[in-house]
Amino acid sequence: METIKIAGFGGSLRKESYNRYLLENAVNLMPENSELKILDIKNFPLMNQDEENNYPENVKNFKKQVRDADGLLIVTPEYNYSVPGYLKNVLDVASRPYGDNPFEGKPVAIMSASIGMLGGSRAQYHLRQSCVFLNMIPVNMPEVFVTFAQQKFDENGKLTDDMTAKFAGQLLNNLVNLARDIKKIRH
Amino acid sequence: METIKIAGFGGSLRKESYNRYLLENAVNLMPENSELKILDIKNFPLMNQDEENNYPENVKNFKKQVRDADGLLIVTPEYNYSVPGYLKNVLDVASRPYGDNPFEGKPVAIMSASIGMLGGSRAQYHLRQSCVFLNMIPVNMPEVFVTFAQQKFDENGKLTDDMTAKFAGQLLNNLVNLARDIKKIRH
Amino acid sequence: METIKIAGFGGSLRKESYNRYLLENAVNLMPENSELKILDIKNFPLMNQDEENNYPENVKNFKKQVRDADGLLIVTPEYNYSVPGYLKNVLDVASRPYGDNPFEGKPVAIMSASIGMLGGSRAQYHLRQSCVFLNMIPVNMPEVFVTFAQQKFDENGKLTDDMTAKFAGQLLNNLVNLARDIKKIRH
Amino acid sequence: METIKIAGFGGSLRKESYNRYLLENAVNLMPENSELKILDIKNFPLMNQDEENNYPENVKNFKKQVRDADGLLIVTPEYNYSVPGYLKNVLDVASRPYGDNPFEGKPVAIMSASIGMLGGSRAQYHLRQSCVFLNMIPVNMPEVFVTFAQQKFDENGKLTDDMTAKFAGQLLNNLVNLARDIKKIRH
Repeated sequence: METIKIAGFGGSLRKESYNRYLLENAVNLMPENSELKILDIKNFPLMNQDEENNYPENVKNFKKQVRDADGLLIVTPEYNYSVPGYLKNVLDVASRPYGDNPFEGKPVAIMSASIGMLGGSRAQYHLRQSCVFLNMIPVNMPEVFVTFAQQKFDENGKLTDDMTAKFAGQLLNNLVNLARDIKKIRH
Repeated sequence: METIKIAGFGGSLRKESYNRYLLENAVNLMPENSELKILDIKNFPLMNQDEENNYPENVKNFKKQVRDADGLLIVTPEYNYSVPGYLKNVLDVASRPYGDNPFEGKPVAIMSASIGMLGGSRAQYHLRQSCVFLNMIPVNMPEVFVTFAQQKFDENGKLTDDMTAKFAGQLLNNLVNLARDIKKIRH
Repeated sequence: METIKIAGFGGSLRKESYNRYLLENAVNLMPENSELKILDIKNFPLMNQDEENNYPENVKNFKKQVRDADGLLIVTPEYNYSVPGYLKNVLDVASRPYGDNPFEGKPVAIMSASIGMLGGSRAQYHLRQSCVFLNMIPVNMPEVFVTFAQQKFDENGKLTDDMTAKFAGQLLNNLVNLARDIKKIRH
Repeated sequence: METIKIAGFGGSLRKESYNRYLLENAVNLMPENSELKILDIKNFPLMNQDEENNYPENVKNFKKQVRDADGLLIVTPEYNYSVPGYLKNVLDVASRPYGDNPFEGKPVAIMSASIGMLGGSRAQYHLRQSCVFLNMIPVNMPEVFVTFAQQKFDENGKLTDDMTAKFAGQLLNNLVNLARDIKKIRH
């Protein structure tokens, strides 16, 4: 069985980010015959259409890795009831210029964590709307909203909550299956 | 009659931005006894909670001007069916740290322009959701969606479309009236 | 101090509806110098523009009571990640014909309950978008999302959870204060 | 090549509904080896969980036809910036009781028409959110928003606008292709 390659990105830029912990733990929750590679999103320039044909190496490299992946995992914090600006900016920058959108047609799984009771759900629905324009194919379920995240990771950032691991694992499994189906259809 | 002070920001970072043109033209559409001051949002750092007690001078200055204003005008482009990352980042950075949110309680008018047929409306509804958390008071109507923006400004960025000017003027008038009412109530 | 009159509606049509329980309990959570009257939304016709000048007595009566109120409370279940059809239909029918919208300018508080972990929040944000068109003024906070509702009411439908009572009471207090301010401004 | 069966529903309940015209015109825009059957959504009961095991014949018949289809077309008006209550109620009723959701896994195309400039887009994004819970697979593009609908149909309800026909035809073609792919994968 062919290995399905997933590229993952997100989390916040702070050192102790529950969303980055979640992304890093996902590596160990992947099903057989698949792998998750975490992409670097630090130091992206702010989106400016005047510069969009002239993006730096890290952006080009990010886009190449997205393009090479069979599917994506985006782990988004929620700031002000929506996707954080710096993460939305990654999508804005990497999807340009027009006609050079590496997200095109990619299946994507979305997860989020928050220290509050809604687990980042509001950010996820906004992100899903962006996926329509980017022509991505989001997995519907299970939705992974990690609520009260401070209770679910240990001091080294290891996920300690079994239910979260179970649902995240199911979502990743569904993502890999979808990516495999899409690969079959397109070839 | 007391002068109502509105602070405006937004537009995209490119040189010829229809959204920045719209913001700049709004200065001339303000009702009597009011003024619109445009705030600089260039060179904001990316939101990072580890740094949020240590923001640079331009952020502190932006926050002070927002706090001093009686109301706000946000002019948002639409990228990937939502608020652009760099503009959302301005809200994310300026609204932190917790307890130091200068947007708190401010009335706000929202406008958007696009070269397409929906005029940025999708970004506006996402921005309205952020306003709930930020505890801002958005003006409901008229909604200003500048469609096919390339036809509505001249080569110097001057607004040439009468209907747009009319609706934008009404929105600004409603914003100033709301700001005046709120000022009256709170004093 | 003048009594502020709030009209409340919502809940689901089933007998044991946590959302209707929530609405009924709100009567006892109102601040001093205010009252909550619960409106009947049963037996509304389905929205049909051909009939909109000819609505039955119960619709006319509902509209009159909304119009007479100083503010509104809407308690919405969440079905399929949005406002239930029958409740959205109440808004659709009562807001027509064009020019005869009794919701116009009314302050409104929104609550929701669900047996799940998100407490109806998705329905609330959709309802807030409808409020833009209806020109209502939603209270921003505190947001009342009653999660795991089956644990928070006794077998007679009495609210037994102190935190829910506290937040719902704050929301109703904020609604009454907003309604009082608006009344002052308009007179 | 096997015929792909699409079931379509929506439009408003009034006699001269642009959305129903759009639905009816879609029959003639279907690609080869496919067919569109329009389902009756009149006289649905209002959703009531106490009655959900006891729905009338027309609901059972609707659910059977949805289940038998390879894909769906939903044509939604926009009321109060969202999906109309009566149409949302069709989804609410037909998707219950829990575990008996005929929409499960179905690919779906969405269209909308309005006499205004946004063409029902706000209703479409709310409907897409419901599709997440219903576990449907919405086609991303092209999005069909029929703006200024009164100019695009003749007095018999025939679509006269070539661009609308072109985009609607592309959307239906993409729906049929997606339905065919899904059928292949699942067998």
